[in-house]
Amino acid sequence: MQLKKTLPLAATVLLLPSLAMAQEAEVVADAMEAVTALNTEMVFIMNSLLFLVGGFLVFFMAAGFCMLETGLVRSKNATMQATKNVALFSLAAIAYFLVGFNLMYPLGDWVVEGWLGGISPTVLEPVGVALEDVDDIEYASIGSDFIFQLMFCAAVASIVSGAVAERIKLWPFLIFVVILTGIIYPIQASWSWGEGFLDEMGFSDFAGSSIVHAAGGWAALAGVIVLGARYGKYGKDGKVTVMPGSNLPLATLGMFILWLGWFGFNGGSQLAMGTISDVADVSRIFANTNTAASGGAVAALILSTIVYKKPDLTMVLNGALAGLVSITAEPLTPSLGAATLIGAVGGVIVVLTIPLLDKFKIDDVVGAIPVHLFAGLWGTMAVPLTNSDANFVTQFVGMAAIGIFMFFASLVVWLILKAVMGIRISDEDQVTGLDKTEMGMEAYPEFSNS
Amino acid sequence: MQLKKTLPLAATVLLLPSLAMAQEAEVVADAMEAVTALNTEMVFIMNSLLFLVGGFLVFFMAAGFCMLETGLVRSKNATMQATKNVALFSLAAIAYFLVGFNLMYPLGDWVVEGWLGGISPTVLEPVGVALEDVDDIEYASIGSDFIFQLMFCAAVASIVSGAVAERIKLWPFLIFVVILTGIIYPIQASWSWGEGFLDEMGFSDFAGSSIVHAAGGWAALAGVIVLGARYGKYGKDGKVTVMPGSNLPLATLGMFILWLGWFGFNGGSQLAMGTISDVADVSRIFANTNTAASGGAVAALILSTIVYKKPDLTMVLNGALAGLVSITAEPLTPSLGAATLIGAVGGVIVVLTIPLLDKFKIDDVVGAIPVHLFAGLWGTMAVPLTNSDANFVTQFVGMAAIGIFMFFASLVVWLILKAVMGIRISDEDQVTGLDKTEMGMEAYPEFSNS
Amino acid sequence: MQLKKTLPLAATVLLLPSLAMAQEAEVVADAMEAVTALNTEMVFIMNSLLFLVGGFLVFFMAAGFCMLETGLVRSKNATMQATKNVALFSLAAIAYFLVGFNLMYPLGDWVVEGWLGGISPTVLEPVGVALEDVDDIEYASIGSDFIFQLMFCAAVASIVSGAVAERIKLWPFLIFVVILTGIIYPIQASWSWGEGFLDEMGFSDFAGSSIVHAAGGWAALAGVIVLGARYGKYGKDGKVTVMPGSNLPLATLGMFILWLGWFGFNGGSQLAMGTISDVADVSRIFANTNTAASGGAVAALILSTIVYKKPDLTMVLNGALAGLVSITAEPLTPSLGAATLIGAVGGVIVVLTIPLLDKFKIDDVVGAIPVHLFAGLWGTMAVPLTNSDANFVTQFVGMAAIGIFMFFASLVVWLILKAVMGIRISDEDQVTGLDKTEMGMEAYPEFSNS
Repeated sequence: MQLKKTLPLAATVLLLPSLAMAQEAEVVADAMEAVTALNTEMVFIMNSLLFLVGGFLVFFMAAGFCMLETGLVRSKNATMQATKNVALFSLAAIAYFLVGFNLMYPLGDWVVEGWLGGISPTVLEPVGVALEDVDDIEYASIGSDFIFQLMFCAAVASIVSGAVAERIKLWPFLIFVVILTGIIYPIQASWSWGEGFLDEMGFSDFAGSSIVHAAGGWAALAGVIVLGARYGKYGKDGKVTVMPGSNLPLATLGMFILWLGWFGFNGGSQLAMGTISDVADVSRIFANTNTAASGGAVAALILSTIVYKKPDLTMVLNGALAGLVSITAEPLTPSLGAATLIGAVGGVIVVLTIPLLDKFKIDDVVGAIPVHLFAGLWGTMAVPLTNSDANFVTQFVGMAAIGIFMFFASLVVWLILKAVMGIRISDEDQVTGLDKTEMGMEAYPEFSNS
Repeated sequence: MQLKKTLPLAATVLLLPSLAMAQEAEVVADAMEAVTALNTEMVFIMNSLLFLVGGFLVFFMAAGFCMLETGLVRSKNATMQATKNVALFSLAAIAYFLVGFNLMYPLGDWVVEGWLGGISPTVLEPVGVALEDVDDIEYASIGSDFIFQLMFCAAVASIVSGAVAERIKLWPFLIFVVILTGIIYPIQASWSWGEGFLDEMGFSDFAGSSIVHAAGGWAALAGVIVLGARYGKYGKDGKVTVMPGSNLPLATLGMFILWLGWFGFNGGSQLAMGTISDVADVSRIFANTNTAASGGAVAALILSTIVYKKPDLTMVLNGALAGLVSITAEPLTPSLGAATLIGAVGGVIVVLTIPLLDKFKIDDVVGAIPVHLFAGLWGTMAVPLTNSDANFVTQFVGMAAIGIFMFFASLVVWLILKAVMGIRISDEDQVTGLDKTEMGMEAYPEFSNS
Repeated sequence: MQLKKTLPLAATVLLLPSLAMAQEAEVVADAMEAVTALNTEMVFIMNSLLFLVGGFLVFFMAAGFCMLETGLVRSKNATMQATKNVALFSLAAIAYFLVGFNLMYPLGDWVVEGWLGGISPTVLEPVGVALEDVDDIEYASIGSDFIFQLMFCAAVASIVSGAVAERIKLWPFLIFVVILTGIIYPIQASWSWGEGFLDEMGFSDFAGSSIVHAAGGWAALAGVIVLGARYGKYGKDGKVTVMPGSNLPLATLGMFILWLGWFGFNGGSQLAMGTISDVADVSRIFANTNTAASGGAVAALILSTIVYKKPDLTMVLNGALAGLVSITAEPLTPSLGAATLIGAVGGVIVVLTIPLLDKFKIDDVVGAIPVHLFAGLWGTMAVPLTNSDANFVTQFVGMAAIGIFMFFASLVVWLILKAVMGIRISDEDQVTGLDKTEMGMEAYPEFSNS
């Protein structure tokens, strides 16, 4: 009982600190919690920012495709080509919002609710969303993810528009775009990026050499086959008529804009920028993307000079683009040297296959099939060269699955469109030019000699 | 009493930890303070970064306007149009720095020091500013805010230059630009964004459908009325002569650049990116801005095809821009579906009002008035549809106040310029083209057939 | 011994908290460590992000140079000019990766291993690098630094290509580019930015008025002298033939893209964005860069109107660029007013020196020497006007050292190339145009009257 008596005094000595200690413990916990919360917050912000910056860069690729294609068609079809490019992007944006995005990222919904369960418009996080209401706090805001993914989807359609230029009717083309961007591409992309079977198999396509570029190339190939060549392109005697682009500086600008956008395309596909390792990885990707494009351009410059005796600007432009497509399946693991070589092979592919297509009378106006399809396949198969987590068999299976689906799904749609409404401009109107016959509006009313 | 004896010893045991505890308490406080400081710092950095990125994106809109307008004038006036666009941006930058910025953000100075108290050049934070010397630690650096706001001011002038193209004299136009960007726009903008009476009333114009776009449209309308139509545009018999743009691919590029810049225009107007809710809001804004542009383009494409039987590229370009202007007053609260519809209405407005202007012999070369004024008014009035904090009466009052001030202030300046130095190029020189008569320099000396 | 008896009880009271205290102390230390780690992480991320954003902005300057130069040459040489620009960037990227980067940042290696010790390809940080394995945790990721610095190196070559346009052979030019970007520029840049002797002396050139712009201008001057003027440019009677650019809207676009890129060029050269003072400094730099360009454009507009009686678009474009070059040596310390004046002097220099070059029969096709060399020298010497850490003597020494080295190293290479393989296109082929003779490919096959 002595203690009891003395307790008050001892207690004042003991309890004050221990009370303080209890409070302090709380404060310490608060501090740790605050650090963790701040860290969580910063990661979320940086990841979202990566998607927003990547998003506007990849958006600008729509302008790049438009300038490239408009510069590579003849001036009598330039207004039409520009119109198609603006319209395709706009329709892709709407189709992807209404159906594509949720179809591409079913995240279990397909299993639980069936295929149709995935069909629903995109809903963004509410205005002023709180930390605890965020959809995925370890990832990024839905809006930033949506805007980034949308741009990839639109790129697929842009690839198609170049190949089928100068003889396809506007409206059937736009209907194809809606189906492509709303349904075909999202289903295919879900296999890899929506936790589908290719993802489970270990198929590795970082930013979409196959999923985006070859996919667009396959859709374009199907279109070109159903559509046929431009009037006068292939003579009966096997003679190929060169139809030179009307504005090469504009096409060059388009290439540069695409190259610029590719920093967002590949860099943003790291999907995260909120840690040291993520930002260093994004940096690697920037460097590798840039050097692969350079490798492709230089290889095409040298090879086209050797093959044709003279350097060829359109080959150089397509070489740079092929370099970019080639590195897209794996822009992270290669060294700078390996990336340069991977891109250079892309450039070589372009120079060798562009004339090859003419042999098969496949009339690809801007070289979209060599650049996006052939270099895309090469890029996909090159992944295991630098990434030990990938293997050739799986890459081949993924590449083939994507190819078969994209080609035949597109083919069916093209054939239906052809049967129902016709997709090809008449030969006479092709001669006159689509701008006059279809649009009543010339691209360069004061310049053209034709 | 045993305890008492032992107390001294116990005290040494007790006091040591409690001393440590005191130190620890300090350390804990330090930790909390460090977290708070880091958080403050990161918010400031992210907000400033938003303004810097938004700033360079909106800067690029100057190039977008320039390409759009240069592509839509006839080639004989293209050099002049490019010159005006470079010069107007440069003069706006200087006028806004010398007077506009502080006039727009008086933050009480007008009341305390009177209207003239607001007239002073912008002063940035000192080099290497410390946390405690920052002007507003919860906002962003002055420099980043200045660069962002400057770009909005310059956009107002860019809107005007398109409408009055092909017949206005260079120097009177540039004097107008200086007054517009240094005084007229900043005063008006201060009503909403400088804590003025429209802000107090609850007028809601997120990124400036009225404050920037309609404002520019009003200034343009006043200019077009004072200036008169281009020579030969309207015949005595009421016949309207179509004067087609000389370079539609360039105009298309301009539209794409404007679309790109609009991510910064609307996204940056969130004014903050340093918290989860802010970055998620910026993401919403990106998504809504993009889909509104798409809605505008698609609506204009479809409607122009129905009305004119053929799709019209310039309508599609202006439709996309009208979609962007329409969503600018409220890019945050709409759902993606609502944003698409708001933009689509903008596109419809453009297709319906562009011919209407010709009926009133209002010669707006690039369609700036339908795009920026009419769609801007629509956007302003559409805010209450999705934002419950806004109401139609206040929106109407704000819209009207801005309109009356911008139109009549501009009108007075235009009339004075007309009286003092003349603003209109002679009919003969218009026929020859401004590039030859005013500049002695052709835009495309080797191409033009005219 | 009393104590011993009471100790157990007191101990339970005492030891429990003190045990907890020990744990707590650890937790507190953890909290502090976590804050510090988070801070370190964020600084590293923000700095790397600055380089990545700056990197893609400066990358886009390659497109800006290309459009500017392609627009300012005659249409018969436009394909060649575009080809050179794509190729030079691609080769610069490879040369800088293989040799330039490590040569420029020897960081002691030159001393330890000798000059050749600096010759090695760039190696990036490994994939998914951890904090402790990062090369320089207080700076930024190697990849981001590399991509940023590479773009500066490529800009040097872009400057040269404009001056020597319309009569230089493709391959000798490209060989020069490889040597310039792989060796000459990196050695010179290492003097200031690689901790070399100019850095030790206190030479101050923030983003490279001398190190990049004047350097490129010196290399161009040497090239132009060795190469000679274009055929027909200077008559025997001293008459100067004006050879107007073929596409001024494209050149205007190029200027705007360069202006845009300059935000990254100067802003990124702060090298840090992870603190309040750094981000505020980047903001100052943005504002000063923009206003200097504006000052240059306005000064050139006014002065060219006074001197030539008519405003001159190419002077305005070059005036804006000269303003940008002028502020590049010190974009941080000037006030907005000082920055405007520094830029304006740049604009004046351009208007006064462009005709001067013709007097000396120095044929600089796009005005690269006045813009990059003369304004670069002015910018370098203007640093002490606003930065008290710089002095005129050191600035002059640095400027001279860079000039002498760049000019003579370039001269030697040009002379060797001339002796070994010839660098000049024949007069006949110049008349026909390089696009037909060297490339067999016209830039505008349907437009050109020539």
